[in-house]
Amino acid sequence: MKTRYFDDLKDGERLHCELVSMTREAIIDFGKRFDPQPFHIDEKAANKSLFGGLIASSLHTLSACTRVVVEAQGNISILSGVGMHEAKMFTPVRPGDVLSVDAWWTDLRRSRSKPDRGFASIKCKVTNQRQEPVIEYGYRYVIACRNF
Amino acid sequence: MKTRYFDDLKDGERLHCELVSMTREAIIDFGKRFDPQPFHIDEKAANKSLFGGLIASSLHTLSACTRVVVEAQGNISILSGVGMHEAKMFTPVRPGDVLSVDAWWTDLRRSRSKPDRGFASIKCKVTNQRQEPVIEYGYRYVIACRNF
Repeated sequence: MKTRYFDDLKDGERLHCELVSMTREAIIDFGKRFDPQPFHIDEKAANKSLFGGLIASSLHTLSACTRVVVEAQGNISILSGVGMHEAKMFTPVRPGDVLSVDAWWTDLRRSRSKPDRGFASIKCKVTNQRQEPVIEYGYRYVIACRNF
Repeated sequence: MKTRYFDDLKDGERLHCELVSMTREAIIDFGKRFDPQPFHIDEKAANKSLFGGLIASSLHTLSACTRVVVEAQGNISILSGVGMHEAKMFTPVRPGDVLSVDAWWTDLRRSRSKPDRGFASIKCKVTNQRQEPVIEYGYRYVIACRNF
């Protein structure tokens, strides 16, 4: 696949992301490893929680959606990630949910101090199969330039 | 363990978090599952990258640190997470790094519309074994009140 550089990106350019299926098994597995709140790992406790059932850790949702975003980036010459924007959470993710990630490049800025690279963000809006908003977040990357 | 409620929290109260060991195996495993950038999953590609070696996905660092923060929360009556603050990344995490998480409760505010709950944030500053800053971030939770 042809390598793409900072110069090749366009502000607003959309990434074509695969759907993300969130299984009960994966939700509990991630919860046990990284975010062992009762409502992420224990069906009975989750049933008695505010959510009335098991929900995914938001870090799991973020991570699972990141996978399809990274796959959709193609062969882009990312030098480094430099940050994550604030993540806003809306509807909880439940076992069986299938998430759509609407992701696009934005905030492109060539580095002033290092002309061989530029900064770019990817913003993401995630919705579930009922078109309910799930999470909004963004990443900031440093990307190599083709011409400098 | 005694349940703690929103009323029991103090602004600035610190959580006592275990150290977080980041192994090569766990870094590659997380990268392959969730953030398959070459510098997270492929030793050779990572050696040629800006980092000169394998580094952890920041989502992995966040997730691994979240685990020890959740464990340190004890039996606190969290109703829900509602967001994550912006994450700022500094020094990359490499295989063998051992991370210290300095975490504390802050921004406590009782809900005006729902007196049975309050909002609280946990802020986290993570450093490595060389006392270099690694990542700063925060979570926002809704927590049940004891008295209302």
